[in-house]
Order: sequence, then C-alpha cells, then structure tokens
Amino acid sequence: MGIIESRLAGMGLELPAMHPYPSPNRTACVRSGNLLFLSGHGTGRQEMPLNIKRYGKVGAEVSEAEACLCAKSVALAMMATIKAEVGDLDRVRRVIRLYGMVNSAPGFERQFAVIDGASDLFYELWGPEFGRHARAAVGIAELPRRAVLEIMGEFELHPES
Amino acid sequence: MGIIESRLAGMGLELPAMHPYPSPNRTACVRSGNLLFLSGHGTGRQEMPLNIKRYGKVGAEVSEAEACLCAKSVALAMMATIKAEVGDLDRVRRVIRLYGMVNSAPGFERQFAVIDGASDLFYELWGPEFGRHARAAVGIAELPRRAVLEIMGEFELHPES
Amino acid sequence: MGIIESRLAGMGLELPAMHPYPSPNRTACVRSGNLLFLSGHGTGRQEMPLNIKRYGKVGAEVSEAEACLCAKSVALAMMATIKAEVGDLDRVRRVIRLYGMVNSAPGFERQFAVIDGASDLFYELWGPEFGRHARAAVGIAELPRRAVLEIMGEFELHPES
Repeated sequence: MGIIESRLAGMGLELPAMHPYPSPNRTACVRSGNLLFLSGHGTGRQEMPLNIKRYGKVGAEVSEAEACLCAKSVALAMMATIKAEVGDLDRVRRVIRLYGMVNSAPGFERQFAVIDGASDLFYELWGPEFGRHARAAVGIAELPRRAVLEIMGEFELHPES
Repeated sequence: MGIIESRLAGMGLELPAMHPYPSPNRTACVRSGNLLFLSGHGTGRQEMPLNIKRYGKVGAEVSEAEACLCAKSVALAMMATIKAEVGDLDRVRRVIRLYGMVNSAPGFERQFAVIDGASDLFYELWGPEFGRHARAAVGIAELPRRAVLEIMGEFELHPES
Repeated sequence: MGIIESRLAGMGLELPAMHPYPSPNRTACVRSGNLLFLSGHGTGRQEMPLNIKRYGKVGAEVSEAEACLCAKSVALAMMATIKAEVGDLDRVRRVIRLYGMVNSAPGFERQFAVIDGASDLFYELWGPEFGRHARAAVGIAELPRRAVLEIMGEFELHPES
C-alpha cells in the first residue's frame, strides 16, 4: 500500500469501488502528458463510500454540514478514479485545481464551506506544498439526477521515471 | 479529405462555416503545446449546421431531444474551429474533456442525455480509445442570448512530426 | 518595471494587494509545467483596486456597466496573483482561456458584455496575438457571499530560458 493510501487508512477512510459509466462515450479520467483531467464526479453516480445524502439542493433539503460530507465522499471517488487510471495514488505529484459545483437553493452563498470537504482531504493527504490547490466553488442551477454536488479537477503526475 | 472528415461525410454531416467573433479580444480556440483549449461553443453564436432550436430553456421551450440535436450541432462547430486552427481534424489525437452547460428550466435533471448528442459524435468519430472523453454536463442558470447550451473543451494534438 | 506593468501604469491602473486565503487548503494559482491554472477570482474576496459594487445579481441590483467594471477589477486581481506566483507579468507568454461566471438575475443574457471588462484589458495588455484568448461567459445561479462575478483562467508562461 502506498503512502497516500496508508494515510487514508490511518484516517479510517477507504476508496470506493469503481462503477462503469452508463455509456461508453465517456470515462472518469483522461490523461494527457503528465496531466489528469477528471470528469465531474457527483453524488448521483458512484456508490459513495460515506453515508451521505445524494440528492437535493443545499440550503433547502440538504444542510451545509451534510453537503460538506458529500464533498469529502466525492473526493474519495476522484481518488478511486485516479488509482484506476495510474495504478497508485503516489504517482500524483500534486493537486492542481478543483471546480466544485454545488446544487444550491436560491440564497445559499457558502459554497466554499461545502467544497472544503474535498479540499481539506486533498490538503491533508498531499500536504501543504502539493495538496494546496487552485479552486472555484460555485452554485450551479441544476445537476443531473438532482445530485447534491459535482467536482471536476486537474491533477499532475510525477514525471515517468 | 482526412479520415475524420471522411467519416463525417459518411454520416451525411459536414462542418459549418466559421464566423468571426464579434470582438477581437477573443477567439474560438487557443493552442498551448499539444493542447487545444476551446471556447464555450453555443447555439447562439455560429451558423448551425443542423436545423435546430437555438434559444430557450431545456425542459420548458426546448425538449430533451431537440437539445440533444443542439449538442450534436455544437460538436460540429467545435470541429470546424479545430480544423481552422490546425488545418486537419486528423491532427487531433484524442478528445480530452467536454464541459457541457445546458440552459435548464427548474427541475430539468437530464443534462447527461442532452450532452450525449456531442459525446456520441466524438466517440463515433475518434473511436473507443481516443474518442472516449472526460466530461461534466450540468444545468446552468443563464446563457448569453438565451442559447440552449454551450460546450467548452480540451483536445490533444498528435506530437509534431 | 516590466513591459506589461508599464502598460498598466500608462492606463492609470495598478495591481491590488494580495490577501491570504481564509484557508491554507487552497491558493490563487498553481503552476504545472508552463501552464498557470488560476482559481476563481471573485469580487467578494480580494480588496478590489477599483471602486466597484462587490455583491449582488447582475440585471437586478448591479447594472451591466457596473458588472463590466467588476470584471476589469477581477482581471487586475488575477494579474496580481500571477505576479506573486512568477515574479513578473512579462513571464506570461499568452492568455489561454477565461471562464467568466456572472451572478445573473433571471433573464439577464448579456454575460459576454460583462466579461469583456476583463477580456478587453488582457487583450490591450498582451496585444492581438497573445492577448486574444478562448473564453466562456455564462450566468451562474449563486456565487459565494453573493459576489457579482468570478473568473477562472489558464495562462501560458514563456519557456524557462
């Protein structure tokens, strides 16, 4: 088990199972050079590793704290995707950027606090230098199947040795 | 005619004409290294190659099937952009990621089915290995000129020979 | 003072001060190779260099002209970020892409005119070849702290000499 997965285990967390996409036209991750471009990972699609609410608008049916746990869960799903793509999370040199889209009820304006559920986890796992990332966290009008949130992102791999 | 355009012709499809942007400050595509970063391509801007509805919210004035045809049309506009930038669609090694923004009426939650109009076309043209792409498909609150949808994306070119 | 900052000064503009992020988990900019990935820069976060409205929906509490000035102000904040990251704005070879998210009241459909406040400034500073960029400008449902707008972007650096 690599360093990052050991840290995850030390936190009592594990990666969720990967599920095939409903259509072959798309995939969870594409690599180009040493960049990984991740699909939007939402609460509606994958089996989620934590006990979360999967559907609803934050600020109405879903509380900020519940949504923050959703973001943490989606971060784990993103890591499962990366592991499936490159074999080992230790191949990730750094988190580049997250784009967090929160299914927001009108007037909900604390998207930053929700997406911190993912950002804090990446930061803890990769540390201050390589876990700190660029980010935008916004309120999106609608998400597929009324998912609570969706996160897209870019990651940098270590150069091939 | 290259391989990709031959496939398009075999489907009875052709690339639309390119139109200049209303302002010189922006362009449809920027190349950096072997990556192409495409602007948001929407139904409101370019002359569209298919007979589509160009304006309105999906789930209200525009049906899911009509919006799916919009996405296919926008995919053709993206390919016209790429051809104008690099000369030949065969220079594209793979589709990396699409970000599909669907102008969604409240409660419309099937953005994935709409953007499949673009994803399916890219997948058919570039095939299972290089046409399969990362993606997010979301419901956006408002689009310029009430366009039905807009798609942004990244593509990878073959290395210079 | 470099060329770009001299041009800014000639326009009577200056870069705003940088403020630390409220959380260490994220940062305003991450460099990967010769690409810079910028966080969403919004009107709600940094001290803004121009006298702008910082909060409210465009088309309701904020006019199009006021929002355009917000976009110009955010462009200055993005440049301050880049300078902090790489030391000199002259290290930027070109603007690649902007993703402008305008906090839009229902029915506001002129996001392109708002984000031109940023695009025009980048275009003037880096010129027609390298200042012209890819872009999407859309209406987002909600932004953190009810910010008027937020802009994310990618920039290309000159190769290391």
